[in-house]
Amino acid sequence: MIDDAVFQNYESAVRSYCRDFPAVFQSASGDHMVDENGRRYIDFLSGAGALNYGHNNSHIVQPVVEYLQQGGVVHALDLYTAAKRRFIKEFHDVILVKRGLDYRIQFPGPTGTNAVEAALKLARKVTKRSTIAAFTNGFHGMTLGALAATGNQYKRGGAGVALHNVVRMPFESYHGVGVDTVAIIEKMIQDPGSGVEPPAAFLLEVVQGEGGLNVASDSWLRRLSELASRVGALLIVDDIQAGCGRTGSFFSFESAKIVPDIVCLSKSIGGIGLPLALVLIKPEHDLWSPGEHNGTFRGNNLAFVAATAAVDFWRDDELSDSLVYKGRYIMSRLAAMVEQHLAGQATVRGRGLLAGIAFCDAELADRVSKAAFKRGLIVETCGPKSEVLKLLPPLTVDLDTLQEGLDIIDASMMEIIAQQKAAAAASLDLLAS
Amino acid sequence: MIDDAVFQNYESAVRSYCRDFPAVFQSASGDHMVDENGRRYIDFLSGAGALNYGHNNSHIVQPVVEYLQQGGVVHALDLYTAAKRRFIKEFHDVILVKRGLDYRIQFPGPTGTNAVEAALKLARKVTKRSTIAAFTNGFHGMTLGALAATGNQYKRGGAGVALHNVVRMPFESYHGVGVDTVAIIEKMIQDPGSGVEPPAAFLLEVVQGEGGLNVASDSWLRRLSELASRVGALLIVDDIQAGCGRTGSFFSFESAKIVPDIVCLSKSIGGIGLPLALVLIKPEHDLWSPGEHNGTFRGNNLAFVAATAAVDFWRDDELSDSLVYKGRYIMSRLAAMVEQHLAGQATVRGRGLLAGIAFCDAELADRVSKAAFKRGLIVETCGPKSEVLKLLPPLTVDLDTLQEGLDIIDASMMEIIAQQKAAAAASLDLLAS
Amino acid sequence: MIDDAVFQNYESAVRSYCRDFPAVFQSASGDHMVDENGRRYIDFLSGAGALNYGHNNSHIVQPVVEYLQQGGVVHALDLYTAAKRRFIKEFHDVILVKRGLDYRIQFPGPTGTNAVEAALKLARKVTKRSTIAAFTNGFHGMTLGALAATGNQYKRGGAGVALHNVVRMPFESYHGVGVDTVAIIEKMIQDPGSGVEPPAAFLLEVVQGEGGLNVASDSWLRRLSELASRVGALLIVDDIQAGCGRTGSFFSFESAKIVPDIVCLSKSIGGIGLPLALVLIKPEHDLWSPGEHNGTFRGNNLAFVAATAAVDFWRDDELSDSLVYKGRYIMSRLAAMVEQHLAGQATVRGRGLLAGIAFCDAELADRVSKAAFKRGLIVETCGPKSEVLKLLPPLTVDLDTLQEGLDIIDASMMEIIAQQKAAAAASLDLLAS
Amino acid sequence: MIDDAVFQNYESAVRSYCRDFPAVFQSASGDHMVDENGRRYIDFLSGAGALNYGHNNSHIVQPVVEYLQQGGVVHALDLYTAAKRRFIKEFHDVILVKRGLDYRIQFPGPTGTNAVEAALKLARKVTKRSTIAAFTNGFHGMTLGALAATGNQYKRGGAGVALHNVVRMPFESYHGVGVDTVAIIEKMIQDPGSGVEPPAAFLLEVVQGEGGLNVASDSWLRRLSELASRVGALLIVDDIQAGCGRTGSFFSFESAKIVPDIVCLSKSIGGIGLPLALVLIKPEHDLWSPGEHNGTFRGNNLAFVAATAAVDFWRDDELSDSLVYKGRYIMSRLAAMVEQHLAGQATVRGRGLLAGIAFCDAELADRVSKAAFKRGLIVETCGPKSEVLKLLPPLTVDLDTLQEGLDIIDASMMEIIAQQKAAAAASLDLLAS
Repeated sequence: MIDDAVFQNYESAVRSYCRDFPAVFQSASGDHMVDENGRRYIDFLSGAGALNYGHNNSHIVQPVVEYLQQGGVVHALDLYTAAKRRFIKEFHDVILVKRGLDYRIQFPGPTGTNAVEAALKLARKVTKRSTIAAFTNGFHGMTLGALAATGNQYKRGGAGVALHNVVRMPFESYHGVGVDTVAIIEKMIQDPGSGVEPPAAFLLEVVQGEGGLNVASDSWLRRLSELASRVGALLIVDDIQAGCGRTGSFFSFESAKIVPDIVCLSKSIGGIGLPLALVLIKPEHDLWSPGEHNGTFRGNNLAFVAATAAVDFWRDDELSDSLVYKGRYIMSRLAAMVEQHLAGQATVRGRGLLAGIAFCDAELADRVSKAAFKRGLIVETCGPKSEVLKLLPPLTVDLDTLQEGLDIIDASMMEIIAQQKAAAAASLDLLAS
Repeated sequence: MIDDAVFQNYESAVRSYCRDFPAVFQSASGDHMVDENGRRYIDFLSGAGALNYGHNNSHIVQPVVEYLQQGGVVHALDLYTAAKRRFIKEFHDVILVKRGLDYRIQFPGPTGTNAVEAALKLARKVTKRSTIAAFTNGFHGMTLGALAATGNQYKRGGAGVALHNVVRMPFESYHGVGVDTVAIIEKMIQDPGSGVEPPAAFLLEVVQGEGGLNVASDSWLRRLSELASRVGALLIVDDIQAGCGRTGSFFSFESAKIVPDIVCLSKSIGGIGLPLALVLIKPEHDLWSPGEHNGTFRGNNLAFVAATAAVDFWRDDELSDSLVYKGRYIMSRLAAMVEQHLAGQATVRGRGLLAGIAFCDAELADRVSKAAFKRGLIVETCGPKSEVLKLLPPLTVDLDTLQEGLDIIDASMMEIIAQQKAAAAASLDLLAS
Repeated sequence: MIDDAVFQNYESAVRSYCRDFPAVFQSASGDHMVDENGRRYIDFLSGAGALNYGHNNSHIVQPVVEYLQQGGVVHALDLYTAAKRRFIKEFHDVILVKRGLDYRIQFPGPTGTNAVEAALKLARKVTKRSTIAAFTNGFHGMTLGALAATGNQYKRGGAGVALHNVVRMPFESYHGVGVDTVAIIEKMIQDPGSGVEPPAAFLLEVVQGEGGLNVASDSWLRRLSELASRVGALLIVDDIQAGCGRTGSFFSFESAKIVPDIVCLSKSIGGIGLPLALVLIKPEHDLWSPGEHNGTFRGNNLAFVAATAAVDFWRDDELSDSLVYKGRYIMSRLAAMVEQHLAGQATVRGRGLLAGIAFCDAELADRVSKAAFKRGLIVETCGPKSEVLKLLPPLTVDLDTLQEGLDIIDASMMEIIAQQKAAAAASLDLLAS
Repeated sequence: MIDDAVFQNYESAVRSYCRDFPAVFQSASGDHMVDENGRRYIDFLSGAGALNYGHNNSHIVQPVVEYLQQGGVVHALDLYTAAKRRFIKEFHDVILVKRGLDYRIQFPGPTGTNAVEAALKLARKVTKRSTIAAFTNGFHGMTLGALAATGNQYKRGGAGVALHNVVRMPFESYHGVGVDTVAIIEKMIQDPGSGVEPPAAFLLEVVQGEGGLNVASDSWLRRLSELASRVGALLIVDDIQAGCGRTGSFFSFESAKIVPDIVCLSKSIGGIGLPLALVLIKPEHDLWSPGEHNGTFRGNNLAFVAATAAVDFWRDDELSDSLVYKGRYIMSRLAAMVEQHLAGQATVRGRGLLAGIAFCDAELADRVSKAAFKRGLIVETCGPKSEVLKLLPPLTVDLDTLQEGLDIIDASMMEIIAQQKAAAAASLDLLAS
């Protein structure tokens, strides 16, 4: 039994993850969490991608504690602080310069949705256009501007008002293999009779984290990027979930060799889950007037300290090299499970450490997730029908733990499939009798 | 000279406070900040109201540090954690029960604007209506839904799209003393020919922090609250800036003896400026479906730890009693300055420790703010034309520091007025010659 | 019994006037209509203001018949035709020049709502602003753009979507005698914190025909007109119902000595009820590109022929002089009825031949209308609660018929009041027994 | 020289057709118009489809004249009249019953755009949904609700505000022959992650008259109709231009054997170009409340008289039989021209007497139209780039006149192509020299 009366009685019904993973967690470290009964769970959820460096990564926690002990400025709006300057400098030197990127950094309110809202405003200001071209199954946040760009019907329905100024475009392969979605998009935008206004920007995730782990290929991204500049639209990459190394490189779009006009970062940029968000803007598009978009917590200096420490992981190639191996290992294990338990009737999706299995039978994903939790693994589902089992282990996951987690998924799938077969057989018997 | 090249070169042009208060801050404590040249500033800005308990309040910092050192869960989405349970319980027992309030607590993304977005969605869901009645000079945030409810034209212009589903209502005294604005509002809403749809909710601040320190009286609030229930609309109090003791009581609406249907809290709820936001919902209105509104950082457990410690300040009456004295002191000093330097040609506004002077000549506020900064005081301006000098000292401000800060304002005003008179005299001479 | 099976079976439930005035009409002439049973009705409805010159005015019908017999062009889009040239020339010479007005004429689709849609588009184009300031109880049409500017909740509800880009302003006296609504409007528009965007235009009727016969005074109109130019907004007068002589002069705004930037005309401009609409545009605002707003029936040449003949009524002062006497007679009769039957507990409203009685008890208006119909008079109700009995006799109404119609209203009121008193006495008796 | 000073000086710059066809027309009869210099023009424009029965068709004009001479009610809002009853009965008996259709008839304001606005409102009311699925290159009118559903960018731009609540779907073959657009539409609507809300209705033209004469095949229409009922959306056919016989049958959708939920008619329904519009509604969807959508000229009784006479043309098969031959003749002539003058580098489009040539070089269409006018033929262009020469002769066009008109097009094309070749040769010479 878990001691959840306080939540039942006083927390809003909107709470959700706690319903799927019923435990009261107390401590956490690296790739695992521990509940107040002392039970240990492997964490393949990673705070929905905010814990790429694992829980309480000591390399990050230590400077944070020191900063607090030294009386560093914790909260400062957008006043200049030494901590902020350090972060900007490190991020610029280690992340941007090394990748040949030149961006101005905006600190919006410290959530992904605030970063997207800022990006959309800026794109509209720069282009003097109002429509945003967003993609099927895109997920960009829950505030009204970002929600309008989000595809999920359930989330959209929460708005309570019609969502405007967004036109929906098909992601790669959305209409099947034979249909070239960039051609479809180009036709809609270039045809003066299409009824689609030239967009201020294309807003997309390279790997759709909530939308079902759909991956945009490098060539598709390049064609989309070229189309964007041809039609005078900005390209905004929402790298909130897929960035910070999640897909194998710091930014998800590196292998495509495109340079988005605006990039949104959040989640793992704060190192240990401290709220922070960044909008990276090509200098020529940084047309903001002072304070035109702001937010109280845009100066979360504790997060700057953590983020600065997290940048260290990208000074050399150790982390990124390890991701290659881990990503491949996950993919091969998942492929084997699909082959073995489902006779190939499911699809392995994703890239890097943002990977999973799309089941044909949507319920299976949920049942496997629940069975895995019983066995000590936290792993969630995603996709329009929650039909995709989604693995987000910390990038720093220990290899043994990674194997252990995958073993649990393997066993859970086997269990669930066996149950399903037994149930089918039983109902067949019933029918026959 | 300040070392701001990194900001000039790499931070977006959207930064704003740093332009008015040019210094690079390094440490802070209680009611003052220190820049990297060792210069000390009295802080009457308090992180725009996020630092009601002062910088790095040791009663709050200590448990935060301990929590980190013990490997407590830092980030957990809306999973159950021991730290979250402790916060809910303390907030419920110490803040709500003692005031006879019964609210469910929702944790949206950890910014004020996210809390407002959640509140608006919920009000629309509960009432099945789409229009929000917001007030002249209201400020509610920068994401699209909250921005639509915000009055400031400059902020609204940043949207780049038309802002919908909000109808604007006059705040108390907006149309002058003789005009009863509740009567105006009632007429517009009750008349089936007015063109104003019955609203889902009234959304307001009891003291308009950004909008110019306009104060709603208890009787006006009561009449508005009654009107709201008469027309089937919810009453949402945005207590993000005016709450957490800022106006003298924990909630700004306590003296009015109204019970809003929804209350938004953020800013100082996180104790030392750690991002956190709360939506308090009457149980009968908690109609959320699971996950219908969410956000990655809604489980900022470090902020829960800080917030729990901050609740301690409300266990007895020491803090709130001190606010009465401090508030009166500020008001009397400001009144004296207006009398002395401006011959009464300005208005003292606000309540509690959210107080200021509305100048007839809008430029004066800015000039006094700048002069004060030179003398070592951080104090900002607000209002539709930035015509109001706005004082937000920490609630815990030391009495000597409070006096010192007010002395600086006094001296700055005297200096600016003298300059103005000299300039006027000079131009008169010029004219005469 | 009326033979209405065809309507009951095959016409949409949206039909409405026929429900209040159940008869099948066959012929009509001047100020009366005749049903197929030969019963004659005095017409104080005048096709909702489209028949200012009475039914089948022979001065207009004759050239229309001749035109058809001569094979004149009937329908021509916006091709040049001789009939159109004649109309433009006559309208320009007789109506505009004589009043010192200089307008370009646009022919939108031949309905009032199409004229309003065109006017709003143009105002938005000219000012590069999107918001229209419309008034409480304004009525401007049923297509989405015009409907957004309409105040009536029932009509608005028909849209099925939220109505945007309109801000609602109080008409003169809307908030009671003591409240200066121009001052209220000015405050909302000039204050950068009000949340009200500077409007592209003010759109209003000088006498609100559907909204309850509220009359804007000359001085209020002048102040509003001055405010409009001060804030860079156009002034659009919707003279669709109040124009063409209805209020005593050809345009309703003549006595106010204002010159609107745009004027919408329809209804009686087509002479005998032939569909036609005009948008009059100050030359400097005629920024339309060719075909930017159009409509198939914008070249209703039969209506041009009728409209040209109708202009003849304005060559001398005979018609307008007669309106003064008729208007006064109506007002004095209505005032006497209110005094006599209602002890002054109702208000006489309107101007010219657009006049009526606003009852305190909304049901009375409907009951008087129904009683009058039984006595052979067609007279409708208006106002947000249908509380106003509204008289629109043809401008050319015969004096005897006018008196007869008013006698019927008088008798109907007497009858209804007597019934009401009897019912009250009966229920009193019942109570007493 | 034409006498157009009055238009130049006093008519708005919005006028358009008169710029392409500069003449002042005076009389018209059947398939030709005559200007005031006595010049005769063959009319392949037919008032943009409002003159299917030719100009001043004597079978229609005569009863109209008689009605006026007998003092019939001309204008009656939606009061019952004998003329209206006669029209409803005839339309029901001759048009609907014979085709096995059962519709309630609504009379909105007498323009196509008003009919579309009514249809959209009703679909939203019936389904309680807000989004309308409209098609690429669809044209539905110029008032705000209908304009939102229109594809043409130039027309849309005239709105001056963002157009909402419409999602754009690809028409048949829009994305090329290989792409199944019904499959695309179904995916977008059925996928809960697509970001496309389930629509209240699909709104389409069977042949897109303004959008470039694109034709929906019977099988595509049937699949779309089935999809609509599967997803709970209404099917609205906008038959304003393609109906009333224009494509060979009275309704454009007859051969597809579908039964739309709502049909919009206007243009030729009024017989000789008198403004009239109809909304045909399946009885189960006629959920209008009285007066929920109205308009002053919804009772244009003169048009009812004309429309009743026009129905006569559908009592036997004479007219429809003749359309088969005429349609084939036009198609074969156009095909021959494309073959002969353009070596097949253009496409013949359309159906019935709504046919034309889509040129690869958009300018050609305009030049051919202008050349034809010089030779005495009025024929316009359409399509997103005005690249389609569009033929709309009256359905009653004389065979000799039809041939004469096509000969003029043939000669004009030859002339323009020859000019083009000469110009190309000249510039080649210039290059060579």
